[in-house]
Amino acid sequence: MCRWMAWHGQPVLLEELLFRARHGLVDQSLHSRLGAETTNGDGFGVGWYGTGEGPGIYRSIAPAWGDANLRHLAGHIESPLFLAHVRASSGTAVQESNCHPFSHGRWLFVHNGLINEFAAVRRELMLALGADSFAAIEGSADSEVIFHLALSFGLEDDPIAAIELAIGFVEDTLSRAGIAPAVQASIGVSDGTSLWAVRYSSEGRSRTLFRSEDVDAVRRLYPENPRVQRLKEGDHIVVSEPIADLPGAWHEIPESSAIGIAATGAWEMRPFEPRAPAAGA
Amino acid sequence: MCRWMAWHGQPVLLEELLFRARHGLVDQSLHSRLGAETTNGDGFGVGWYGTGEGPGIYRSIAPAWGDANLRHLAGHIESPLFLAHVRASSGTAVQESNCHPFSHGRWLFVHNGLINEFAAVRRELMLALGADSFAAIEGSADSEVIFHLALSFGLEDDPIAAIELAIGFVEDTLSRAGIAPAVQASIGVSDGTSLWAVRYSSEGRSRTLFRSEDVDAVRRLYPENPRVQRLKEGDHIVVSEPIADLPGAWHEIPESSAIGIAATGAWEMRPFEPRAPAAGA
Amino acid sequence: MCRWMAWHGQPVLLEELLFRARHGLVDQSLHSRLGAETTNGDGFGVGWYGTGEGPGIYRSIAPAWGDANLRHLAGHIESPLFLAHVRASSGTAVQESNCHPFSHGRWLFVHNGLINEFAAVRRELMLALGADSFAAIEGSADSEVIFHLALSFGLEDDPIAAIELAIGFVEDTLSRAGIAPAVQASIGVSDGTSLWAVRYSSEGRSRTLFRSEDVDAVRRLYPENPRVQRLKEGDHIVVSEPIADLPGAWHEIPESSAIGIAATGAWEMRPFEPRAPAAGA
Amino acid sequence: MCRWMAWHGQPVLLEELLFRARHGLVDQSLHSRLGAETTNGDGFGVGWYGTGEGPGIYRSIAPAWGDANLRHLAGHIESPLFLAHVRASSGTAVQESNCHPFSHGRWLFVHNGLINEFAAVRRELMLALGADSFAAIEGSADSEVIFHLALSFGLEDDPIAAIELAIGFVEDTLSRAGIAPAVQASIGVSDGTSLWAVRYSSEGRSRTLFRSEDVDAVRRLYPENPRVQRLKEGDHIVVSEPIADLPGAWHEIPESSAIGIAATGAWEMRPFEPRAPAAGA
Repeated sequence: MCRWMAWHGQPVLLEELLFRARHGLVDQSLHSRLGAETTNGDGFGVGWYGTGEGPGIYRSIAPAWGDANLRHLAGHIESPLFLAHVRASSGTAVQESNCHPFSHGRWLFVHNGLINEFAAVRRELMLALGADSFAAIEGSADSEVIFHLALSFGLEDDPIAAIELAIGFVEDTLSRAGIAPAVQASIGVSDGTSLWAVRYSSEGRSRTLFRSEDVDAVRRLYPENPRVQRLKEGDHIVVSEPIADLPGAWHEIPESSAIGIAATGAWEMRPFEPRAPAAGA
Repeated sequence: MCRWMAWHGQPVLLEELLFRARHGLVDQSLHSRLGAETTNGDGFGVGWYGTGEGPGIYRSIAPAWGDANLRHLAGHIESPLFLAHVRASSGTAVQESNCHPFSHGRWLFVHNGLINEFAAVRRELMLALGADSFAAIEGSADSEVIFHLALSFGLEDDPIAAIELAIGFVEDTLSRAGIAPAVQASIGVSDGTSLWAVRYSSEGRSRTLFRSEDVDAVRRLYPENPRVQRLKEGDHIVVSEPIADLPGAWHEIPESSAIGIAATGAWEMRPFEPRAPAAGA
Repeated sequence: MCRWMAWHGQPVLLEELLFRARHGLVDQSLHSRLGAETTNGDGFGVGWYGTGEGPGIYRSIAPAWGDANLRHLAGHIESPLFLAHVRASSGTAVQESNCHPFSHGRWLFVHNGLINEFAAVRRELMLALGADSFAAIEGSADSEVIFHLALSFGLEDDPIAAIELAIGFVEDTLSRAGIAPAVQASIGVSDGTSLWAVRYSSEGRSRTLFRSEDVDAVRRLYPENPRVQRLKEGDHIVVSEPIADLPGAWHEIPESSAIGIAATGAWEMRPFEPRAPAAGA
Repeated sequence: MCRWMAWHGQPVLLEELLFRARHGLVDQSLHSRLGAETTNGDGFGVGWYGTGEGPGIYRSIAPAWGDANLRHLAGHIESPLFLAHVRASSGTAVQESNCHPFSHGRWLFVHNGLINEFAAVRRELMLALGADSFAAIEGSADSEVIFHLALSFGLEDDPIAAIELAIGFVEDTLSRAGIAPAVQASIGVSDGTSLWAVRYSSEGRSRTLFRSEDVDAVRRLYPENPRVQRLKEGDHIVVSEPIADLPGAWHEIPESSAIGIAATGAWEMRPFEPRAPAAGA
């Protein structure tokens, strides 16, 4: 059901986190421990900020663990802010346009989860999109629709509020269709400066989501680990599943919560409370 | 802008027409002579009827000319009725779900052409689809939308009339959006028994479309060509571009015409006249 | 470390065994129970005999479980004799030319296993091939080299004896290079009429291999299973891992054994005893 | 028969040359003017130096013109030294391991051309490789063998001399096999600091190769072209086919010549004279 990670901090080579960390995301593509599926082999993607305009993106339908290009790119691209995702399809086609991250202008979006009986409400959900947003949809995944709903509801102004509206709208649409309003939504989103993450599920049994603990504390816990010692104040990792066996280094983000990490590295957490947009919105 | 071909007749190995005929469809993928584009390398597909339930389909985003699997499959699949298509994208993503033929139950559909400024009207066009048809759309190509519109307008009852309504609806939608109502539509469609083909463009400057001449006449023209001598009464080939240099063997289908070839091999031609569906349809 | 299966019997749609059987090969690509690896997602292939000259082959680097084409082809290709393989790379590239089955003329070959420290002896092993066989090698996998060695040692005359020579030559070459002479070789091979299978490892701890029990006995065990009741006398399945939970239906092929199944369905088993070819051979 | 380009100069985004230049390499993949083939759609690759250890590489079997990842990467990777290649297969498989550039440590290698009747001498040529070099070969292309021969003959010490030995060895091997000793070799090679290029063919009818003229002269020729005005002294482009319609900007490299461009931007040209390595080498 997908795994993802995000980095916000000092510039690092992507490989540092994707390949070199024990139980890193690429390893999780083959052997997830906490996911709904142990194998996340239905494509992957990484989006990063750095050189060039807006985010760079590399997506592929190959499994991440065997992709020679990913290994090469990860060793030669450096970034202070990136999101990566490995996919386990919940039924939609294995094609690049269904791979995360999705993008719009400077924005990147990854999602682990699903919309209950998506096929039954896909039309209804997409009708809420304007012509441009509608035309921008390239694939058939529920995640892409959630992203575009959030864009329509103001993602670029207030990301968490917009995602609350998007999820609320989805739950409301499911209810109106007589379907159990079940949404699973572990979401990461960035504009290239800040990073936001959401952990939510309609039923209160959400996919896991973790953030790295205070860096200073982690360094004291592992004084002899050179990789940990290179971490700096203000470095943050957000992951659907811990990427290294470092007891005490990870803090589980609670159910129905959202966090935001600012350019400075300062972060805050708030409740995540979906609500349907006002009629006519 | 795509090339396609269809066979309706005695069972043949696919390779007979895809690879062995001079200037066959796979050769056209690399060197089209009559197409809007000389290279049709943005994926391909073939759908056939024979063993098994409904049509078999093989689609790939690789260029047809270099695909080892296509060569193998064409040499080992025999069919009395198949459609094949090589794609030159008019801008939408190169992904299998944008490759032809599209299918629904027993039906196959190929298209060479485009909808003018499709992105601007995609939402409006897809709103005309019911929830099931909407949910069945996997890709982002205009062709897939035309197919599902035709299904909504009764393709399974009267294919040509339904395509007339679909094209009429597209032209009407473009007009209402203040866009020149230009559609290019060389279309092939089959239910596994009969084959229909359409040649149309709003501006009356349609992509080419040909049908093979009366088999008996062709055999007399080429008494020493063993492949031609194997042709039987009732065998029909429909192509967007002639697949062998056989003067006299091809008959151009006129502008704004449709043909239907029945299970018996009997065929007929009629005018193709798009019209917008009645309001509320 | 790969999983494979072979069918020899009445003509069946490939999907009957690849998809519809409980824990069939495609399911094993995602969740192997007995393999060295649980995931076999580094490509797959199927080779079959039937319509057309020699075997048809479809190979892909996508995981078998998500490949839309495989599902379609399996539902529309019928064959009395086919081999299918799902791959877990032991380090060599994920590319179609490393996917099984390998073919030469009418022959197909699948392999589950490996040559210890293959890179160190690859040159030495390939020197034993003639110029034609050498030139025919398209990929970089040890399995392809074993196949071509067996061809060089007479596979087309006496398959099991030739594989004994090939494996013996590999073990001998490893020894001469000062490497532990460890080979794992669960092999399936066919000429389109007969089917042969080998279970062997230098260390006597071979990958599993099973053949379906006497069909009549299986039918009596499962009188209410319609799929089992369709089995006929002389139908044989050989698998690296049982493809349905049918106690009593599978017979493990012993260590260091080879079986041969003739066109008639008659089968026999013999010891498999690798031996180095005579010098100068 | 392939097209390639190399850049050596100030750091630039790859897209500046691959996409934005008129008739850039990606455009040449679809519409080559000077190549033996107009379409170079059998895969592509780009290798660059910059961030990270050694060269970064991205290779794909998709046509360059439609690859969404290439477009993204080219817009987000900056490099002072890169080589790019679009492939038209001369018969060997379309697989990533046959795509250029080939690499070894810090070295990158691209080739446009072929070895006459390669299959007949492949074994003989590869026997000249040591076990490590032999084991490193992943694909089946003649170009990869030429690269590894050059490595064996001292590429890392004196690239041009080593390529002269490699080509000489190939010509000699062809002669000994009774085959016309015809080699086509437009080659680019780099260690991340310098860039070398070769134009040669046994028959003296070589594929074209051009270097950009003295930058100062080009700037004076096109005072109003902003892209040209950004060029600096010491910037060099080497291309198999001019990538912009700038009369006077390109200088054809003569038959049987090699050029070397040093880290400083200084360049020199010398004759390219293949010779067979001494016996026993």
